Parts: sequence; structure tokens; C-alpha cells
Amino acid sequence: MAFPAVEEPPPPPAVLLIRRRLDAAFDAALRQRYRVLDFSASGEPLQDFLANAAALPDPPRAAVVVGGFAARVDAAFLDVAPSLAFVFSTGAGVDHIDLRECARRGVAVANSGTVYSADVADHAVGMLIDVLRRVSAAERFVRGGLWPAAQGEYPLGTKLGGKSVGIIGLGNIGSLIAKSVHDLAAESDVLVVACALNKDTRHIVNKDVLEALGKDGIIINISRGANVDEKELIRALKEGRITGAGLDVFENEPKVPAELFSMDNVVMMNHVAVFTSESRSHVLDTTISNLEAFFSWEPLLTLVLPW
Amino acid sequence: MAFPAVEEPPPPPAVLLIRRRLDAAFDAALRQRYRVLDFSASGEPLQDFLANAAALPDPPRAAVVVGGFAARVDAAFLDVAPSLAFVFSTGAGVDHIDLRECARRGVAVANSGTVYSADVADHAVGMLIDVLRRVSAAERFVRGGLWPAAQGEYPLGTKLGGKSVGIIGLGNIGSLIAKSVHDLAAESDVLVVACALNKDTRHIVNKDVLEALGKDGIIINISRGANVDEKELIRALKEGRITGAGLDVFENEPKVPAELFSMDNVVMMNHVAVFTSESRSHVLDTTISNLEAFFSWEPLLTLVLPW
Repeated sequence: MAFPAVEEPPPPPAVLLIRRRLDAAFDAALRQRYRVLDFSASGEPLQDFLANAAALPDPPRAAVVVGGFAARVDAAFLDVAPSLAFVFSTGAGVDHIDLRECARRGVAVANSGTVYSADVADHAVGMLIDVLRRVSAAERFVRGGLWPAAQGEYPLGTKLGGKSVGIIGLGNIGSLIAKSVHDLAAESDVLVVACALNKDTRHIVNKDVLEALGKDGIIINISRGANVDEKELIRALKEGRITGAGLDVFENEPKVPAELFSMDNVVMMNHVAVFTSESRSHVLDTTISNLEAFFSWEPLLTLVLPW
Repeated sequence: MAFPAVEEPPPPPAVLLIRRRLDAAFDAALRQRYRVLDFSASGEPLQDFLANAAALPDPPRAAVVVGGFAARVDAAFLDVAPSLAFVFSTGAGVDHIDLRECARRGVAVANSGTVYSADVADHAVGMLIDVLRRVSAAERFVRGGLWPAAQGEYPLGTKLGGKSVGIIGLGNIGSLIAKSVHDLAAESDVLVVACALNKDTRHIVNKDVLEALGKDGIIINISRGANVDEKELIRALKEGRITGAGLDVFENEPKVPAELFSMDNVVMMNHVAVFTSESRSHVLDTTISNLEAFFSWEPLLTLVLPW
């Protein structure tokens, strides 16, 4: 009589990791649980990398996409990765993922949920205080050694208290709602752009909205650069038709229009509103929890509702 | 029978104006009500200017002192201005006024009261977010055109939420209380220095307090430079014994120690925490109200309690 066969534990499931840069801690945590197919480490063109992964005996059913720089998850991507059933975006925004195409093919999409919310909100407040109270401008002045030789009046800032703040943050805004943005701008001193980028919100802050915001108005953009018509923003800043701007994001990152470099009423950052060591560790937890849920056939924790 | 003599309106009272720079709006408002004896416009050395004013038939009973750069109101000052009975400081701090000497001679002192409180508090928050979230550092990075060529990991910021903030703001702190500052530092992530500068608070943030604050600690100074031992602060920053600092004030303004210029974890400003157009207009109102009260023998509105 044969002994019952000792079952080997099943091999860990394969996960595609699509991102531009290495992150040792994130990597190590993923590798502890999954067979990670790492695009940036492969050195291959994306299409080849995906095709090779799809040809494996156990092709990947899940992908983790870090940031929007490495790849767009669109029809071309999904065509060569037919085994995919789940895409997790470590970012809050999913503008690099074609949700319609994912939905059509039954690919679930989840994102980082509220992991970054408090950090990004803090950042918006920080940039607002900076623009109003000229923090970065004063910093340049002092660091440039200009203070001892200063002549005449140093430019005054503007009080924070009493300002009305309008927030464009309705998620997926239909074109019908664009009218409200104009009205919101007209009633606000400060317009915070916090909405998702999609075809309805691209350039939602356009020439008309800037006009409605008016010459005492301030734009804070902590969403995606393309939510604001950058050319019109620069024109409005140049001509004094708005007061200032705090920009964490730009239309063609990491390229920043050179005209902004000489503007003292603009605070610019390199898309770091989400960058804290706390959020870095929190997003890793959220990534793992969603993957665990997916591979256990349980509901995803931070599902993105498509369009 | 003679007609009763028509009384001429009394001439407006004389007011000394002691400051370094002109401020047209402030000047005009004072001149509407008073005979302004303007030190900075006189071109005279301070002692001569005061002696000439004292020799007038109607010598000044009140002085308005703007900022601490122009003059110290001390025994030497008061000796040549014996007619003075009231000194108004347009600043919140009165460290340039010898309160003990004023009290001894029966000279009342008032300051700007709470005019700047909200602006300075906003500024402290702005600098704190800046230090934690590296706003100015990212600004330099982007403005310097370094973003497109960036390699490797960009340094993470630190989350604002959950930080404990200790505020040194007890006004005139006795030396006995200095022990509490050490304990406050030990229990805080962020130490905001907001107290008056006097002999008890000079270097209240010293080597021991920095040590107690610890290597994750942040100093925000929006009071006076000399409340912090600047040499020890620089040493602690250099050696990584604290995390960062937001400094609106320095020990030898407008001179800033050059060692700070290369530190990315320091946010520096040119003593502008009070500088908003709103506070500028508000302080003018407060100056006039106090002068009106003084010349009408009414209680001063924002009396400074001496030591």
C-alpha cells in the first residue's frame, strides 16, 4: 500500500511589478509573498516583458503599477497580458490606467484608497500658506544672502484667515458639472484642484475659470498637471490676472515650463505631496492586503469604480 | 465791550517717530493727527534728534517705535527725552525697550497687542509643514531644473498628523520655569519658540533643550533669534541631533550664519511672520487708538506689563 503523497505547498502566485525605479523595502515585502516579475529589473521593452510573462506556465493574474511614468495600462498593454484579472495602482490617481478597457475585459482595478489623503491635504495647506505668506520667496531671499543689503520695502504677504477656499474634488466629474467649477472659482479666493484626471476634467481649470477666480485668486494643484491648462495659467500669472499658484504637478512632468522659474508668486514641487515615510509604509500594507484579497477570491479593499 | 477772543484750536500734539524706514501710508495717517518728529527723515544722530525735540516749546510726550533696528529705548534714550510719558511699539516684542527703566521713570509702554497673532501662528504652521514636507527644498530642486535629470530616490518627507507640538510662549518666563522647557522639549516632536525675549528667555533653547528634543525633533522660532542659542542649534543640525528647523528670526539679523545656507532641512525667512497687508493696516489702527487714548488721558488699549 502506497503512502499518501505529501503535497508540496503551491508555488506563490506570479505578480507583475510595473514601475520605473527600484524600492528595496517594497520589493522585499512583495517577494516574501509572490513570484515578482519585475519590469524595471528585466531591462526588456514593455511589450516583450509582458509577452514573456504571458508565455509562462503560470502566467501572472495580478499587476502592481507604481506611478504613471513606467507604462500606461491600456488596450495594447492588456492585449499582451491576457492572463491579467487585477491591476493595483499604488497611486491615488488611475489616469494611467484605461478603466473602460479594464472593465470591458473584466480586469478589476484597485488603488491606494485614502492612504495619501491626509498627506496631500497637509501639502495643499503648506503650499497655500507658502503662496500667501511668500515662504519660498523669503527663503530664496535669505539663502541668496540678499537680506543684509536689502533696500526699500520687502513685499507683504496676505493673511490666511478669512480666505474662502473652493475645492474641485468631485472625483469623476461629468461635463455638465464644469459650469459649477466656474461658479466655484468666482466665489473663491483659493481654488484647490484635487479631482481625478480623466477626459471630463482635463483642463477643467481653463482660461474662463482663471478669469472667474480673478486677480486676487490662487490656484493650488495637488491632483494632475493636465487638470489645469498650464499655458493659460502661466499667461494669467504673467499678466497678474491671478495672484499666485502652488503646483505639485505639471502637464509634462518632470518638465516644468521655464517661465515659471522666475516667478516669485509660484511655489513648485516635484509631485511629492504623497511622499512621506508614513505613507510609503502604509501603501505597502494596502498593496499586500489587496493582493491577498484578490488571490483569496475575497472582495478588493480599495476598488476603483470605473468612470 | 470786547468780543470774546476766538480760541484757536490747540496745535496737534508732538509724536516722536523712531524707525529705520519710511512707510508712506503709516506716515500720512500719523501726520493727519499729530506733529510728527521723524527720526529717519531728520538725518540726525539719535541723541541730537532727541535733544532737539526735547528743546521744543511743546516737547513730545509720546514716541512710536517701529521695529528694533532703529534704536533701543533705554536709559540713554530716556535721559535726553525727559518729556516722554508714553512709548508705543508697533511690534509685538518689546525687547528693544527697557521696560524696567521706563517703569522707573513713569513712562507707559504699549505694543501692538494681538494684531500679529494669527499671522505669526499661520507662519509657524507654514514653516512646520515646510520643514516636515520639505516644501522649500523641493522648490529649490524644481526651480534649479534638477527634476528631469533626477536619479535614485527623492528624500521622503514626514507626516504632519500625530506630531506633538510644544509651545514655549509663556511671556516673561522666570528662570525657575526653564526646567519646564527641558521637559516640554523631551515630550515634543516640534518645539515652537513664541516667547518674549528678556534676560530669562535668552538662549532658553540651549544645548540641553536641543538634546531633550532629540534627533526627530524640529525647532520653529517665530519669536526672537536670541531665544535660541544659534551656535548650538547649528551644531545640532549639522550633527543630525535634531531633524530640522524653521527660523523666521536670527541672533544677529539681518546676518544669517552662512552654514545654514547649505542645509536642506532648514527653512529660513527674513523676520516676516508679521508681514501681511492686513496686519500692516491693523497695526496702524492700533497705533492711532493708543495714541488717542494717551492724549485723552484714557487707559491705553494694549498696555505692556513690565517684567
